[in-house]
Amino acid sequence: MAEIMPHWLTKQADLAPDKTAIELNDGTLYTFRDLKEASQSFARKLKQLGVKQGSNIGLLSANHVDMVIAIHAVSYIGAVSVLLNTRLTRSELNFQLTDAGVSLVIGQHGFGPVDTDFCAFSDVWNLPESPATLQTEIDLDDPFTIIYTSGTTGFPKGVIHTYGNHWWSAAGSMLNLGLKKTDKWLAALPLFHVSGLSILLRSVIYGIPVYLLEVYEKEAVHKAIMERGVTIASVVTVMLKDLVGCLGEKRYPETFRCMLLGGGPAPKALLEEAKLRHIPVFQSYGLTETASQIVTLSPADALQKLGSSGKPLFPAQLKIEQQEDGIGEIFVKGPMVTNGYYNNAEANEKSFSNGWLATGDLGFTDAEGFLYVADRRKDLIISGGENIYPTEIESILSAMDGIDEAGVVGKDDEKWGQIPVAFVAVNDPSITRESIWEFSAQHLAGYKLPKEIHFMDKLPRNASNKLVRSKLLNDKHE
Amino acid sequence: MAEIMPHWLTKQADLAPDKTAIELNDGTLYTFRDLKEASQSFARKLKQLGVKQGSNIGLLSANHVDMVIAIHAVSYIGAVSVLLNTRLTRSELNFQLTDAGVSLVIGQHGFGPVDTDFCAFSDVWNLPESPATLQTEIDLDDPFTIIYTSGTTGFPKGVIHTYGNHWWSAAGSMLNLGLKKTDKWLAALPLFHVSGLSILLRSVIYGIPVYLLEVYEKEAVHKAIMERGVTIASVVTVMLKDLVGCLGEKRYPETFRCMLLGGGPAPKALLEEAKLRHIPVFQSYGLTETASQIVTLSPADALQKLGSSGKPLFPAQLKIEQQEDGIGEIFVKGPMVTNGYYNNAEANEKSFSNGWLATGDLGFTDAEGFLYVADRRKDLIISGGENIYPTEIESILSAMDGIDEAGVVGKDDEKWGQIPVAFVAVNDPSITRESIWEFSAQHLAGYKLPKEIHFMDKLPRNASNKLVRSKLLNDKHE
Repeated sequence: MAEIMPHWLTKQADLAPDKTAIELNDGTLYTFRDLKEASQSFARKLKQLGVKQGSNIGLLSANHVDMVIAIHAVSYIGAVSVLLNTRLTRSELNFQLTDAGVSLVIGQHGFGPVDTDFCAFSDVWNLPESPATLQTEIDLDDPFTIIYTSGTTGFPKGVIHTYGNHWWSAAGSMLNLGLKKTDKWLAALPLFHVSGLSILLRSVIYGIPVYLLEVYEKEAVHKAIMERGVTIASVVTVMLKDLVGCLGEKRYPETFRCMLLGGGPAPKALLEEAKLRHIPVFQSYGLTETASQIVTLSPADALQKLGSSGKPLFPAQLKIEQQEDGIGEIFVKGPMVTNGYYNNAEANEKSFSNGWLATGDLGFTDAEGFLYVADRRKDLIISGGENIYPTEIESILSAMDGIDEAGVVGKDDEKWGQIPVAFVAVNDPSITRESIWEFSAQHLAGYKLPKEIHFMDKLPRNASNKLVRSKLLNDKHE
Repeated sequence: MAEIMPHWLTKQADLAPDKTAIELNDGTLYTFRDLKEASQSFARKLKQLGVKQGSNIGLLSANHVDMVIAIHAVSYIGAVSVLLNTRLTRSELNFQLTDAGVSLVIGQHGFGPVDTDFCAFSDVWNLPESPATLQTEIDLDDPFTIIYTSGTTGFPKGVIHTYGNHWWSAAGSMLNLGLKKTDKWLAALPLFHVSGLSILLRSVIYGIPVYLLEVYEKEAVHKAIMERGVTIASVVTVMLKDLVGCLGEKRYPETFRCMLLGGGPAPKALLEEAKLRHIPVFQSYGLTETASQIVTLSPADALQKLGSSGKPLFPAQLKIEQQEDGIGEIFVKGPMVTNGYYNNAEANEKSFSNGWLATGDLGFTDAEGFLYVADRRKDLIISGGENIYPTEIESILSAMDGIDEAGVVGKDDEKWGQIPVAFVAVNDPSITRESIWEFSAQHLAGYKLPKEIHFMDKLPRNASNKLVRSKLLNDKHE
């Protein structure tokens, strides 16, 4: 049966009108009442642009309170936000807009242009309010957002998130991490990715503030944790590495209780360093399709199971389709998992079976059911019949003194099929290919040793600061 | 869309196998793994008795770990537990068993007899296990339990609780109270009432222990809070009064964070006394139909809004159908509210409209949306055209030194239609009708003064220790 309930923001504004919903880095605060009123006003203005229940509306913005307001405003109309990555090219944006049937894009002034009508947030604010009625209730089965994700092959696919997907994701996280009424969740990840978006929804469901950073700066994140009462922060590996550097010999306040680490496998050495510095890192695993984390370490297991992503959140399920060496493709199921891609029967057919989503990621579970993620299946290197997991080599290289970051990909090879090729950014000019080989040979079997090593100033990363392995071979310049 | 998920107990046993699920007063502990294994074993034995998916199974037991196991076992078969009040007469039990189409009752040895097949828990344990497969998943739309409730008129009605009703109830409570992994919830209320049952389900969903008392004894509850790490306790008014007495000049440990008070309006004087003694009382309002509390004070508001039951839990809704004096009937809506009574179209027609449940209770909300519950509508006294709320008079009488408890009902009267009649239990022999009238006259308008005052040793209470006003006029003996 479809579950009907009050609009979440309205409900939270009823429960805790004076509580902070959004805190900006400059100290500006928005209460849940403020946020509701601004969002409803924005919705009435959007109505003047012809936005209707069921419309797909493009949203093109960096992190900004107007983006938060716009997301809630679109939902007050019963329309669906198509969240656009601000780093995309015009043609990439146009593909998504056409695919999702978007006829209007709203966003921060200066973004675009796109081939679709664009209206800046500031121009929306200048419109008069329509007297239209807004949605007072939501149906968990209704779509809330669409976010495009690049598949292993072909064009990006639009992941539809229902209100229910977001609800169950928030509930699962709460059951894992617990909930304190004094919690404050830091959002330094882009809101157009589900990792950032999900923080906004937890805020509205839990009744806790989001500490919203408009751009990621490591010092700002460090200060927010040290001085601004942040209790939980969502980060990816490179951010954790930055933060370890900022922390130095200091310690985070006792009230900081969770560094939620996503965005792919993390080097073991970094996790050990974080543990030494008493940083409460909880590794997690998730995809756009799972509305953010779906497997996360629990507070009880975080220290004992270093390197694991934990167990599937309540009430998600996980299975591994075993391959010969124990590693296999990760499948997940649960009410936080999308029901499918927008208007893409072929991808849906390929990815879903009996409610199980084939993630395209590889991993294994230990005897107690803890997940260890190896790699994207497409990144697996098969060399002379042996499976080589780039993450394993990256983890070793990253642990070497003087190496800042490392990426490994497979390169076609006549003799072996593929060979592993490494890319490193170093902070010590004395490091040579030979010294790296020497170090690696102490830890890796011969067939896993990178056959080429390339030096780069910086490895290619996406808007979430995740390593983009597919760009390594093209981006290299020495 | 129906939400499918792993069986909750199986899921929790996967997440936290070694964590305590049940703690008994004698120190016996059951982990989630123990509880799952015992419940699955019991389920395989029950199968030998012909229990099938979809069967309604009677459960007749006082609080006991076997009852917890039986409830989970029945759900592992996909059957439905009809929870029976152990205080009922044989004919009352037979009515419910016939109404719910129950062909087998299981329970503690010595309960019964009933006109239906009865099998004691101990006899079930002695059966061999059937090799039958058990449910691995649940559907939130499926029924889990049926609990009979007495309506304002006519025969008891069977309230069907789906898994979803219980889930949303647990989620709403968690969003209000927060969740700590160190929480331990005391169950001293009967498990055959939804107030007790809901504690079991929160345990399995949250992954926290239930401290299960087999019988209510005030010293045992006091000790559990003082010495056994209980952090949350569900109580009714008379228990709170007992506990205030036990506490004396001592204070509860800081870790005890919530005394969840249900079971009807509480005397203001008692709430004030509890506040003075730093007892974290959170008043709440709920019915069997709402799968326990649906309106509860929040930690932030508990001290400021003494006497209020709070705001509707996320994501429930509340409305009052106003009458002339601002007080009206309370209506509630939300996914924790039952979809209806078992096999009772007439009652369903009468109680539900567009998803709203008419509670039969009277109350009002203040300007900020906080609910104040006045009385059951059936208990309203109309005297000479004036509305008189028994709770108001009871609250005044209870505040008088020497009065232990007070109950007020309307009695038919030729001149006034009805008159208020009071029943009191006193601990001071010097108290007279005259002294009570004198005290009351300082606080109550003349038409509200009880026209008769009767002394009783003890007021009639049900299994949940709630005052049963309907029995006052019959039970009186002086």
